[in-house]
Amino acid sequence: MIRFTDRAAFGAALAKLPSPDPAAIEAARARQASLTKPPGSLGRLEDIACWLAGWHAEARPRIEQARAVVFAGNHGVAALGVSAFPAEVTRQMVANFESGGAAINALSKLAGLTLEVVALDLDRPTADFTQAPALSEAECLAALDAGARAVPDGCDLLVLGEMGIANSTAAAALAARSYGGDAVDWVGPGTGIDRAGIARKIAVVEAGLAFHAEAPIDAFETLRRVGGRETAAIAGAVLAARHRRVPVLLDGFICCAAIAPLAADNPAIVDHALAGHRSAEPGHARLLDRLGLDPLLSLDMRLGEASGAAVAVLLLRAALAAHDGMATFAEAGVSGAT
Amino acid sequence: MIRFTDRAAFGAALAKLPSPDPAAIEAARARQASLTKPPGSLGRLEDIACWLAGWHAEARPRIEQARAVVFAGNHGVAALGVSAFPAEVTRQMVANFESGGAAINALSKLAGLTLEVVALDLDRPTADFTQAPALSEAECLAALDAGARAVPDGCDLLVLGEMGIANSTAAAALAARSYGGDAVDWVGPGTGIDRAGIARKIAVVEAGLAFHAEAPIDAFETLRRVGGRETAAIAGAVLAARHRRVPVLLDGFICCAAIAPLAADNPAIVDHALAGHRSAEPGHARLLDRLGLDPLLSLDMRLGEASGAAVAVLLLRAALAAHDGMATFAEAGVSGAT
Repeated sequence: MIRFTDRAAFGAALAKLPSPDPAAIEAARARQASLTKPPGSLGRLEDIACWLAGWHAEARPRIEQARAVVFAGNHGVAALGVSAFPAEVTRQMVANFESGGAAINALSKLAGLTLEVVALDLDRPTADFTQAPALSEAECLAALDAGARAVPDGCDLLVLGEMGIANSTAAAALAARSYGGDAVDWVGPGTGIDRAGIARKIAVVEAGLAFHAEAPIDAFETLRRVGGRETAAIAGAVLAARHRRVPVLLDGFICCAAIAPLAADNPAIVDHALAGHRSAEPGHARLLDRLGLDPLLSLDMRLGEASGAAVAVLLLRAALAAHDGMATFAEAGVSGAT
Repeated sequence: MIRFTDRAAFGAALAKLPSPDPAAIEAARARQASLTKPPGSLGRLEDIACWLAGWHAEARPRIEQARAVVFAGNHGVAALGVSAFPAEVTRQMVANFESGGAAINALSKLAGLTLEVVALDLDRPTADFTQAPALSEAECLAALDAGARAVPDGCDLLVLGEMGIANSTAAAALAARSYGGDAVDWVGPGTGIDRAGIARKIAVVEAGLAFHAEAPIDAFETLRRVGGRETAAIAGAVLAARHRRVPVLLDGFICCAAIAPLAADNPAIVDHALAGHRSAEPGHARLLDRLGLDPLLSLDMRLGEASGAAVAVLLLRAALAAHDGMATFAEAGVSGAT
């Protein structure tokens, strides 16, 4: 298993990424062409099946050990009035996940996902990133490692999400520091803050970007300076999954912002990932575009906690149901195109 | 059960449509507002749950007896070179449905749908609509009735689709006669015909519209003059389902074109229906817009046979999983917005 013992280990892991299996992709494409339907008529379901084939190195892949992981963290900037909800809701929602009452519990059950909740030092919020790096180097490495450890042995699909009051503010800062643009381009209502709150969020993100303007712009520094423990853990999980060729489904704005620093350094990091959905959070569409990800769903969801990605798992199951379950033209005695 | 004994019975059924239960919708909205998530953060999943509540007249609706019905028919215009596949494929695919090898079999199984295939006089194609009405009045009534009979007792979700070589040509004519526009606005590649074939389709649709230009433009005449048995059956099923308050999921271009004549006469016909997806067939986006339907999925699917709608059933299940399975703020001890 990959370990992020120091920033050099993280950088090396990000610099050299494994590829999918080309023979399995080819075999999956050939199977799709033989099935009783006009070529290409299942659209993205065909692409999904072939993509999974490549990462599983199997012409007929299966999803049997899919895991949803929700990372939770608390944020120093929550004290600055950037969220519609009080900071204690992070801990309360972790308890709700653990007792089975949240959306992700219901959706994981439906989608056949085991659910792990990883609460990251909730009693130690990050530092206020307008005044200091949010995380020390050691804290950031620990969060990356927590992400890597959350990829279970034998996992064939990793579904990632987060919980953390104020983390859409951190996400906006991560996106802006990775891809440029002004704070206003990346800040939105999050869980539902009002116009005055959005103005406060923009000011906080601007102050954070200004405070860290002289620091190096690389994935590790961005993750630790303006991110949180849960976003660093997502980054660590995505990178660790890649080195084990485990395909990943990303959730919404915050989840995608967590990998923006990685993608800015190495755009190929998204090759083993799909975007489960496009969130209603305005910055998400822009972020997906920068990441080069075309979301599977667009249902105006904006909950986080892996909820959109969990729904998208159903589409992966549909893709594999057709890929594996359909008859070929030869098997069914159906005529091909004239 | 509603019967279409004559065109007057059909017209009366279309003119007076029942409404959903307002108290159940209100109760479902109140429940959504109490669940442990920011208000509205499940987006369309919340709307779907409340919509199902209205038609089921239950604050916490369930989908336990969902049925997919695929209507199949043959078309006189198939002889005019408008499809990439030979006409015998309609019968071959019906056999494939019956032996379980088609996409809709695999997707119905995944989505928990029973599947019924209704083959409508496959040995009697419709008349060539460029020369005569495609169906006699009696034939059209019989097809409408076959649709109505396909709505089972106790059904809580009806998923509709079709199979019929050349039926995207009939669908283009149905859409054009219902909503206006030129043939070129509604004709596309269907199962994958080439540029020359598309030109033939356009000419066929233009000839059909010209031949029937003097006939009355109402739902019944449009269905019988330029449609097919499977499209009339879909229209009959949608109308019969409405009178039993059974919610409906529509599939792609042809399925939506089947109800365009009804919607042109009474736009409220779509209130108990959702569009499962937006097909890659170019006319579908325009048709959805005219029908006032916002598709749940957009995956570049273009297979028909209810495949896109069957995938969309998974989203309805996700909506109900969250609606029914989540804890309320009070139950979970989670703080609300400040």
